[in-house]
Amino acid sequence: MSLTIWCNAKFNETVTQRLVAAIRDRGHQLVWASNASASVLDAGGPDAAMNEADIAFGQPDVSQSRDSAKLRWVEVTTAGYARYDTPDFKETLGARGALFTNMSGVFAEPCAQHLLAQMLALARQLPASWNDQHQDSPPWNYTDRRAQSTLLNGQTVLLLSYGSIARRLVELLQPFGMKIYALRRRTYSEAGVHVIAEEKLSAVLPEVDHLVNILPESEATTGFVNARRLALLKRGARFYNIGRGPTVDQNALMEALESGHLDSAYLDVMDPEPLPPEHRLWRTKNCHITPHTGGGRSDQDDAIVTHFLDNLAAFEADRADDMANRIV
Amino acid sequence: MSLTIWCNAKFNETVTQRLVAAIRDRGHQLVWASNASASVLDAGGPDAAMNEADIAFGQPDVSQSRDSAKLRWVEVTTAGYARYDTPDFKETLGARGALFTNMSGVFAEPCAQHLLAQMLALARQLPASWNDQHQDSPPWNYTDRRAQSTLLNGQTVLLLSYGSIARRLVELLQPFGMKIYALRRRTYSEAGVHVIAEEKLSAVLPEVDHLVNILPESEATTGFVNARRLALLKRGARFYNIGRGPTVDQNALMEALESGHLDSAYLDVMDPEPLPPEHRLWRTKNCHITPHTGGGRSDQDDAIVTHFLDNLAAFEADRADDMANRIV
Repeated sequence: MSLTIWCNAKFNETVTQRLVAAIRDRGHQLVWASNASASVLDAGGPDAAMNEADIAFGQPDVSQSRDSAKLRWVEVTTAGYARYDTPDFKETLGARGALFTNMSGVFAEPCAQHLLAQMLALARQLPASWNDQHQDSPPWNYTDRRAQSTLLNGQTVLLLSYGSIARRLVELLQPFGMKIYALRRRTYSEAGVHVIAEEKLSAVLPEVDHLVNILPESEATTGFVNARRLALLKRGARFYNIGRGPTVDQNALMEALESGHLDSAYLDVMDPEPLPPEHRLWRTKNCHITPHTGGGRSDQDDAIVTHFLDNLAAFEADRADDMANRIV
Repeated sequence: MSLTIWCNAKFNETVTQRLVAAIRDRGHQLVWASNASASVLDAGGPDAAMNEADIAFGQPDVSQSRDSAKLRWVEVTTAGYARYDTPDFKETLGARGALFTNMSGVFAEPCAQHLLAQMLALARQLPASWNDQHQDSPPWNYTDRRAQSTLLNGQTVLLLSYGSIARRLVELLQPFGMKIYALRRRTYSEAGVHVIAEEKLSAVLPEVDHLVNILPESEATTGFVNARRLALLKRGARFYNIGRGPTVDQNALMEALESGHLDSAYLDVMDPEPLPPEHRLWRTKNCHITPHTGGGRSDQDDAIVTHFLDNLAAFEADRADDMANRIV
């Protein structure tokens, strides 16, 4: 069965050739969008060529994906999929037997490593030492930095959401012997992780040394990390965000940092993005920023195409249950 | 049997009280040096009071420790013990049945976490983002930083020396699926680690993405990481040093960084220390520095005294084999 695969993602030359050859070798037809996205991760607009496609791969227009009766599978090249995450979209696809997959498997690994990098950087006082090194006359702050350096062992971490990033982070944290909580709607016990529901949150926050926000963006999560919850955290706790910016009340966060209630924060996502140069977050005390690079991996294009081709093999064989990161 | 315990380490008030009480409760006598060290880690000079001691705890004078006929055990408060590491010292103690222990068990954990922090900071481009954030008008370098971000998975690391720090680092690296080599005089196979001897080094260096130097200071290790060995590394490799500064030819290292042969370095130890503000290392391209804080832990004094008291219990019971970190 020959399939028509529409794509609006722009990959590097080597990976593009690999994708083209793989699709041709399987006897399918690859149709590039007339208005290809600027990069792999950018949203594209409607494109007439997609109406003839069996499969859409990239960042297809939401309404067009929902309404293309011929379309049987959409795979987006990102882990986040807020634009598509509506009952209307998911039910319409589901009703006609179409599938929707994302790339959380590609981005969970770098995001988990990024979070551990941020946690260890703060524990080992790396930003303070960078700051020392970049002074006109670098001081040798041996005594202070050593006294401030901590171990992760025995500390308590709370993961807000418990999906593929959180699960991988739990694996990376395993050798440190931390106490790990994870917030999830459906709770159940799992080796090494205390899964809690939202009504337990206020009871757990005062124990927490490291609050790790991995929440996706939705109506339910907007402003979830608010002044009340930040105030419940142990004094000197640290906050990390690799989820989405709007899930945090940034004014409350800046206040908690400036007052010293929070020791520090490491943010990979903010609201808005890009964060304007004049935004107060850049200069908030002990607030460290990476520009939404948590999912970055130098082999990104290759990993995305591998993910798609593996899923394509399962799709061809009618094994939808074997497709990775299926949402619908 | 009442023992006289001489101590020249200076602990914080709480820990001092704990040590005093524990030694009194065991029926021993604690004698403080007349010239106590400024901190736990500083070397002290000769002190007449030590001549009457059964045990010396702290940083006792080397010659006096060697010659005090009554002294049956020396425990130093550091992991490094280069001053004591001579055949003369060790054989003299051994000949009269005296023991020598260090604190590698206290410092292995923070050093291993510090190394992983440095490895992940470079992999996730944290210093580059930190630098962006501290510009007058912070840029949003999303695309570049993502493309430069890497995963540790599948990369190759070579550990120079394979003691307690290296072993703990191997545990922390276990979830990342790296290929791990370790250099050691006596080679043997061990799960997950390829232990190699020095004659294999030149063959392995061209494979290495991460060269981790944990070498102690000795005649044999001076300048061990030299221009020839750095040149053998894969282009774009990274170098870490948490061992001792003099084990590296720093001019060769700076040259390899400036030329771009090495991607970057993260140094916790240098030669000299403190590194003078005008030293070229502070400003060498992609050279990141922490001021010998790898062993830093906020609970240091407590951990050192716990180590000593645990060893004291074994010493009292004549169970020298149960004493942790025994050198002689």
